[in-house]
Amino acid sequence: MALRVGVIGTGAIGEEHIRRIQFKLVGAEIVAVTDVNLERAAEVIKDIPGARVEKTGQAVIEAADVDAIVVTSWGATHEEYVLGSIAAGKPVFCEKPLATTAAGAKRIVDAEMAAGKKLVQVGFMRRYDSGYRMLKEVVDNGSIGDSLIVHCAHRNPEVGESYMTDMAIHDTVIHEIDVIRWLLNDDYVSAQVLMPKKTKNAFSHLSDPQIVLLETAEGRRVDVEVFVNAKYGYDIQCEVVGEEGIARLPEPQSVVMRKDAKYGTNILMDWKKRFIDSYDVELQEWIDSTAKGEVDGPTSWDGYRAAVTADACVKAQTSGAIEAIPAEPKPDFYK
Amino acid sequence: MALRVGVIGTGAIGEEHIRRIQFKLVGAEIVAVTDVNLERAAEVIKDIPGARVEKTGQAVIEAADVDAIVVTSWGATHEEYVLGSIAAGKPVFCEKPLATTAAGAKRIVDAEMAAGKKLVQVGFMRRYDSGYRMLKEVVDNGSIGDSLIVHCAHRNPEVGESYMTDMAIHDTVIHEIDVIRWLLNDDYVSAQVLMPKKTKNAFSHLSDPQIVLLETAEGRRVDVEVFVNAKYGYDIQCEVVGEEGIARLPEPQSVVMRKDAKYGTNILMDWKKRFIDSYDVELQEWIDSTAKGEVDGPTSWDGYRAAVTADACVKAQTSGAIEAIPAEPKPDFYK
Amino acid sequence: MALRVGVIGTGAIGEEHIRRIQFKLVGAEIVAVTDVNLERAAEVIKDIPGARVEKTGQAVIEAADVDAIVVTSWGATHEEYVLGSIAAGKPVFCEKPLATTAAGAKRIVDAEMAAGKKLVQVGFMRRYDSGYRMLKEVVDNGSIGDSLIVHCAHRNPEVGESYMTDMAIHDTVIHEIDVIRWLLNDDYVSAQVLMPKKTKNAFSHLSDPQIVLLETAEGRRVDVEVFVNAKYGYDIQCEVVGEEGIARLPEPQSVVMRKDAKYGTNILMDWKKRFIDSYDVELQEWIDSTAKGEVDGPTSWDGYRAAVTADACVKAQTSGAIEAIPAEPKPDFYK
Amino acid sequence: MALRVGVIGTGAIGEEHIRRIQFKLVGAEIVAVTDVNLERAAEVIKDIPGARVEKTGQAVIEAADVDAIVVTSWGATHEEYVLGSIAAGKPVFCEKPLATTAAGAKRIVDAEMAAGKKLVQVGFMRRYDSGYRMLKEVVDNGSIGDSLIVHCAHRNPEVGESYMTDMAIHDTVIHEIDVIRWLLNDDYVSAQVLMPKKTKNAFSHLSDPQIVLLETAEGRRVDVEVFVNAKYGYDIQCEVVGEEGIARLPEPQSVVMRKDAKYGTNILMDWKKRFIDSYDVELQEWIDSTAKGEVDGPTSWDGYRAAVTADACVKAQTSGAIEAIPAEPKPDFYK
Ligand SMILES: NC(=O)c1ccc[n+]([C@@H]2O[C@H](COP(=O)([O-])OP(=O)(O)OC[C@H]3O[C@@H](n4cnc5c(N)ncnc54)[C@H](O)[C@@H]3O)[C@@H](O)[C@H]2O)c1
Ligand SMILES: NC(=O)c1ccc[n+]([C@@H]2O[C@H](COP(=O)([O-])OP(=O)(O)OC[C@H]3O[C@@H](n4cnc5c(N)ncnc54)[C@H](O)[C@@H]3O)[C@@H](O)[C@H]2O)c1
Ligand SMILES: NC(=O)c1ccc[n+]([C@@H]2O[C@H](COP(=O)([O-])OP(=O)(O)OC[C@H]3O[C@@H](n4cnc5c(N)ncnc54)[C@H](O)[C@@H]3O)[C@@H](O)[C@H]2O)c1
Ligand SMILES: NC(=O)c1ccc[n+]([C@@H]2O[C@H](COP(=O)([O-])OP(=O)(O)OC[C@H]3O[C@@H](n4cnc5c(N)ncnc54)[C@H](O)[C@@H]3O)[C@@H](O)[C@H]2O)c1
Repeated sequence: MALRVGVIGTGAIGEEHIRRIQFKLVGAEIVAVTDVNLERAAEVIKDIPGARVEKTGQAVIEAADVDAIVVTSWGATHEEYVLGSIAAGKPVFCEKPLATTAAGAKRIVDAEMAAGKKLVQVGFMRRYDSGYRMLKEVVDNGSIGDSLIVHCAHRNPEVGESYMTDMAIHDTVIHEIDVIRWLLNDDYVSAQVLMPKKTKNAFSHLSDPQIVLLETAEGRRVDVEVFVNAKYGYDIQCEVVGEEGIARLPEPQSVVMRKDAKYGTNILMDWKKRFIDSYDVELQEWIDSTAKGEVDGPTSWDGYRAAVTADACVKAQTSGAIEAIPAEPKPDFYK
Repeated sequence: MALRVGVIGTGAIGEEHIRRIQFKLVGAEIVAVTDVNLERAAEVIKDIPGARVEKTGQAVIEAADVDAIVVTSWGATHEEYVLGSIAAGKPVFCEKPLATTAAGAKRIVDAEMAAGKKLVQVGFMRRYDSGYRMLKEVVDNGSIGDSLIVHCAHRNPEVGESYMTDMAIHDTVIHEIDVIRWLLNDDYVSAQVLMPKKTKNAFSHLSDPQIVLLETAEGRRVDVEVFVNAKYGYDIQCEVVGEEGIARLPEPQSVVMRKDAKYGTNILMDWKKRFIDSYDVELQEWIDSTAKGEVDGPTSWDGYRAAVTADACVKAQTSGAIEAIPAEPKPDFYK
Repeated sequence: MALRVGVIGTGAIGEEHIRRIQFKLVGAEIVAVTDVNLERAAEVIKDIPGARVEKTGQAVIEAADVDAIVVTSWGATHEEYVLGSIAAGKPVFCEKPLATTAAGAKRIVDAEMAAGKKLVQVGFMRRYDSGYRMLKEVVDNGSIGDSLIVHCAHRNPEVGESYMTDMAIHDTVIHEIDVIRWLLNDDYVSAQVLMPKKTKNAFSHLSDPQIVLLETAEGRRVDVEVFVNAKYGYDIQCEVVGEEGIARLPEPQSVVMRKDAKYGTNILMDWKKRFIDSYDVELQEWIDSTAKGEVDGPTSWDGYRAAVTADACVKAQTSGAIEAIPAEPKPDFYK
Repeated sequence: MALRVGVIGTGAIGEEHIRRIQFKLVGAEIVAVTDVNLERAAEVIKDIPGARVEKTGQAVIEAADVDAIVVTSWGATHEEYVLGSIAAGKPVFCEKPLATTAAGAKRIVDAEMAAGKKLVQVGFMRRYDSGYRMLKEVVDNGSIGDSLIVHCAHRNPEVGESYMTDMAIHDTVIHEIDVIRWLLNDDYVSAQVLMPKKTKNAFSHLSDPQIVLLETAEGRRVDVEVFVNAKYGYDIQCEVVGEEGIARLPEPQSVVMRKDAKYGTNILMDWKKRFIDSYDVELQEWIDSTAKGEVDGPTSWDGYRAAVTADACVKAQTSGAIEAIPAEPKPDFYK
């Protein structure tokens, strides 16, 4: 029996998730979708005979033939639909962010715990990237001893004028915040943000690059260079410094060229290609665990802690100070 | 409507293909299987409710509910089942080799042409490897100009005592023979084999390493170092020398380590892991094209030409001479 | 006419410098040496017929046939001999540190300016490393645009029990402090030191690893991971993030191996080998410029600013705060 | 006492050698030079007070104050001056080739043996390259077990119209011929040359690329791709396949860049830069061993065997056959 999925928000990533669930992955099918733009919603499912358009997100959630929900609408609407799914007792996959505020994420955590069953998975897809998984295996199997420091870089070729300084945290570093928490199996206790000399290639309102410094409960240090007008490519770097050695995220696979007096590989320019395979793995695993009545990906607790950490980073962007991140023991519910 | 697949031979790779078709890929299901070892066949499908064991390969081929056949029995039996599938007018995916002799492969080509419809795909899975595909894209898009030379290496950690000198061609270099033909869109006209100083790590009856030299119709030169007791790892290298630059097959993805006074990556020891993803892509594409009534993978013509080339290489192993490979224009049927 | 050199301090590096000046480099010869251990001094020059032992450093400085001085005694004695050389009007090459306090270095700067002629070069040999020079060329020629951030790592396999937390600055990071100032053609304005989770491989009294954060007058940010019990090797990393691209210090040259399931190169374990060639270049250039009556290497101003910066870093180690480094315009004398 | 050197031929490399001997290396000085173009000879030494121009090569050889000779005139004149030096009992460094025919080289070997003392060193500078030396150390120390195969590539960006097919052997592969003999401590017994599809970037009279196949007395196999219009750079590759692993010549040191969607290093375009440091090491070691009355670099035997091998390769270029290279035991004199 295929898992019957309803999708709220048929924009860019909504459409992609619909197509992978319907045509590429196994064990699930799309039965209902919606969007504030109903025409768009209808267009997206026109080659999926078994799927229909519902008028609202709530209608999708409540539909009797919908077993599980995928939320891919704008971030500000996520909280409502995730809470709705919990109320309906249905599993929900919510694209990041879980909510646009830490308080909103906390409400989801509280509702889910009150409901007594884990239902929510957040769309932090890096945990499903083959490279990060290899890196986590090395960290976990003790090859490099205990992890002490993580150096990261998150570089984009460029961003548009609407990209603001705090988006470097909420839209960009948010992925490192989650994936390094997972990699280290640790949580953050303080944040600081350095503002280096600004590139001439950024709009005047944007601080770019920035360096985010995070400290964990275990005393580990994480530094993230975020540079969204780096021109040369979309480039994700991660190096873990351990007691016995260093492990580094593999570069994306690329033909090795000798040409025009240069030796090396290509760097991606388009961020979409970097984690394209991770989305498949993420949703396949979500389908599989959901079918078993489990959640084994990033939970709403993870989404909440990412939000709390991001808030401290944003505060640190303007204060210039080391901002404490309140430590909260992970509830047994999420262990 | 899922493609209903029958499988002949439920050994190592037969079982793997059954599981990927049934549980991992989309658009197909296993309905019938057989093996000379019927218990083994039953064991393999015990968690596939819709599948049954047939007594013979011919029974699988003829079963009314079998739309397409997968042949994964021992090489010597492939010809019979492929000819049977053609006679039944059913699409067939046959693991390499298509046949154990060039004459056998030719009989398949002739039967298929007589039947008037392409039905046969051969299991040369390297064409589906992401690295080789990236390399082919570079070759095809003109980045390095026309290809002039290809340097290859095919190295295994070790082989058992039953591995004979001619198996270096039929079991090992056969993959390079096919994939380089495809990469260059060219065919071979001569073969020569050099026997370098023998490693002390090979059994006394085996010449190891060997260097196979192939010449193509367009005058390109291909050299393949085949070294099956190379100890250090399973390692596939391929470098294309073009008029304007050089392109090299990517190494398999691996965490970059700094440890124990060494900087670098791991090399696979187990050949099965090297092309594991390619089998998925290969069979998914086979399912998709079969569903459309097409064959877009390696054809029986490709399997035949690989066999002819391998025969010339084996002859060259003992003659020490440059052995001609009869040029044959590709029939329009296969274009 | 060869430059006649006197050497004060014939310990480990004193002996090495004596041998390279006498036997490997051109344009200079050793004429006089001294050490508090006179036997050691005599031993070191026993195969140099033209050289003699003097009883004191001052005697070396004042000897009529000594044109230039090399100071390779213990750090605490450097100031005295450099001031003595200035007083004698003789060029002096002083191993790092120029003085053990910023005040001492300042006294040298003042004396040299009062003398009205540049005479002092400090032994910051990294500026002469072929890799750093290639990196500086890339930074200077504009290939990566303006430099915004520099990421550094300075890792040793291990240190002895006598190595204290502040030595991570004075003995280790001091090299990054100088070479990055030179690379960026900029100077520091603040320092902060992070203390990550401690490795179990360090003595209990030592904080290891540490992360030193420096800010420059131009707003550039420099981070230096210093990890002196990193076990796996002696490893110097430096990556410059520019507006248009990233440039990284080359790894030391090493044969690329495929062996024992590993692909990669060796990492040095012995720090002495890492910059061994730089000492030759450094002293050859010192001989050449001294012969011309010039100083074109690191000046006493550079030694002084390195000392001021190191003091701020040491203060930051215990304060945990961002420590200001007083900006001082470089005197015209040193431009 | 400095070694007093006379130089015959003050062209491109003659001038460079004069300058390095006089100004960069230790233990030697230029006292006499000559050239068929006497004005050129005078020009080259105008800033070397102790040096004079002699009218002929023979006059240089015979000059009482000349201790040792450097021959850097055109190849066709080398034999005469080397024989002259032997007759005069003086050590001689002769740029490659030792002679333009194997017979000529043999005459030198015979004369030197008759004279009873090794006097001749040939200018095969690759043996002094730091990369090849590292590679030889790996081969010699047993890290990769016995060597079985060597894969080489020798690629130039382009050559002029005067470069003929046989020059690929005599001017280009000659360096591999020597350096691989030395690396393996073995000698050649057969040669074959393959002519791949020709690049459109070569002049019509030139076969380019070519693949030279050499077999050694121990049965090892060496393949050299020589491609002199490879466009993309000057690139020397060498990979030794051993029983226990593979070792590859390091790439020249270069800053690692991330720029313009590319990750990697620069490749040299100018061959002169590739081995520039090797010339220094080569001549310094020649000076040092000559001062001790020894020859420890490539001997005239090496020059002779290189010539014999090159002749077989040239024959193989046109015959297309496997050409035997007469085995000759190395005389005790050269052991
Ligand atoms: N994990 C990742 O790497 C990743 C990548 C892309 C997007 N995302 C997240 O996915 C979400 C969607 O991003 P996108 O790029 O597809 O944006 P998009 O604007 O292309 O699509 C959003 C869609 O949601 C619809 N929508 C908005 N409010 C709605 C509502 N109340 N009910 C129903 N539909 C509504 C919009 O009409 C639009 O079609 C965002 O939260 C984004 O952060 C995550
Ligand atoms: N493309 C590749 O990389 C690749 C990899 C592995 C195997 N193969 C090919 O797949 C084939 C099978 O290899 P394997 O490793 O699975 O071998 P295997 O011995 O594990 O399995 C073969 C199975 O076929 C059965 N069989 C033999 N004759 C039969 C017949 N007449 N009818 C029905 N069943 C019969 C055997 O009982 C056995 O169970 C071989 O041709 C091999 O070359 C290809
Ligand atoms: N640039 C570099 O990388 C580098 C490397 C090594 C050493 N150094 C510096 O070089 C200096 C010497 O280091 P080392 O490793 O050779 O130490 P060392 O202890 O081996 O040698 C120092 C020598 O100085 C002598 N000495 C001490 N006081 C003296 C005095 N007043 N007069 C004469 N001789 C005196 C000692 O007897 C000893 O022989 C130190 O300042 C060190 O920091 C720099
Ligand atoms: N080892 C290497 O990598 C390498 C590199 C360059 C050149 N070489 C060799 O060095 C030699 C010279 O090469 P080059 O590039 O300097 O050539 P070049 O033409 O620049 O110089 C040769 C010089 O020799 C002079 N000359 C010729 N015949 C003479 C004679 N009989 N007596 C005195 N002078 C005479 C010429 O006038 C000319 O000045 C060649 O044999 C070449 O193969 C070797």
